[in-house]
Amino acid sequence: MAAGHIDFWFTMGSTYSYLSVMRLVQLERLTGIRFRWRPFHLLVILQEMKHVPFADKPRKSAYMWRDIERRAAMYDIPVSLPAPYPAQQSIMANLVASVGMRQGWGVAFVRAAYRRWLQLGQETGSEPNLSESLRDIGVEPQRALALAITAEAKAALMEETDFARDLGIFGSPTFVVGGELFWGDDRLEEPDSLGG
Amino acid sequence: MAAGHIDFWFTMGSTYSYLSVMRLVQLERLTGIRFRWRPFHLLVILQEMKHVPFADKPRKSAYMWRDIERRAAMYDIPVSLPAPYPAQQSIMANLVASVGMRQGWGVAFVRAAYRRWLQLGQETGSEPNLSESLRDIGVEPQRALALAITAEAKAALMEETDFARDLGIFGSPTFVVGGELFWGDDRLEEPDSLGG
Repeated sequence: MAAGHIDFWFTMGSTYSYLSVMRLVQLERLTGIRFRWRPFHLLVILQEMKHVPFADKPRKSAYMWRDIERRAAMYDIPVSLPAPYPAQQSIMANLVASVGMRQGWGVAFVRAAYRRWLQLGQETGSEPNLSESLRDIGVEPQRALALAITAEAKAALMEETDFARDLGIFGSPTFVVGGELFWGDDRLEEPDSLGG
Repeated sequence: MAAGHIDFWFTMGSTYSYLSVMRLVQLERLTGIRFRWRPFHLLVILQEMKHVPFADKPRKSAYMWRDIERRAAMYDIPVSLPAPYPAQQSIMANLVASVGMRQGWGVAFVRAAYRRWLQLGQETGSEPNLSESLRDIGVEPQRALALAITAEAKAALMEETDFARDLGIFGSPTFVVGGELFWGDDRLEEPDSLGG
């Protein structure tokens, strides 16, 4: 398999993205593929589509939790479900993740925040998840959170969100490779998505 | 893997169900598992949920066709996309499938109708798809269609739809095995879903 790179588009309020967040580091090691982590604010796109994937659909939500639980077990990823959902302040998590990607601690933050959300039940984007996740990775919360709410940080996140919309993205996680979209952690197993 | 049986819940208006419809016969042969084909009228449940999976979502629909195309290629299943969607009269296809399941020609009809829809572009549930699919499998269309619009046939389909709703089903295809739901053709590859 040729080494290449795959864009990993994700939004911090997405439950299913947890599986990818936990898997990608190992997948990189095994395959030599480099994933470029690109947080965006999916909620804006969902609202434009008038699409609520789970929150107002109890049967679909119940299935979602069970499906995630089964797939986490399949990959030996710890999980404690259901987690708080929907996350009311997912925009804050996306802003911090976005700042972190530019500063070099983004992937570590995303992994810490997801662990706290889906293993410890701390809602992502809210306190104590935000500050504790930053502390977990050795980043001073006050400074990082101040950076996250600047106009520049918001503009950068919305620019990425516009980019995602232009690519045709409507869900998280979405993998983009060679101009092709693959939606869902389960599509990582599809031959084309990893370049053959 | 222990031989057992899996309920295959599907609705004829579902595009993704085409993949399962084309795969199950071979899967039965390879695994010894028996699939029980159970058509139901998903549209009723979607309307109760106020959920429109694709029809009013152009980006998601575009992705759906591409995803089906890639997965069909993966399984060597012929497909010609996009097909007419949404199918306006999917209830007729479900009623005929439901009558056919009781009379022993249901699986053959479903396969013929899907081939005509996703290979030849004939909208499922409408003419000429209905009559030609019946003729393809040697069933006299006039008699079968007359049976499909009886009050008994409608009641039987709605009874199955109620059963599906009670199981927590909200999409097609859904596989039910040992009380567990697996939504989506892609979940057939999940170890638990085939009992192995």
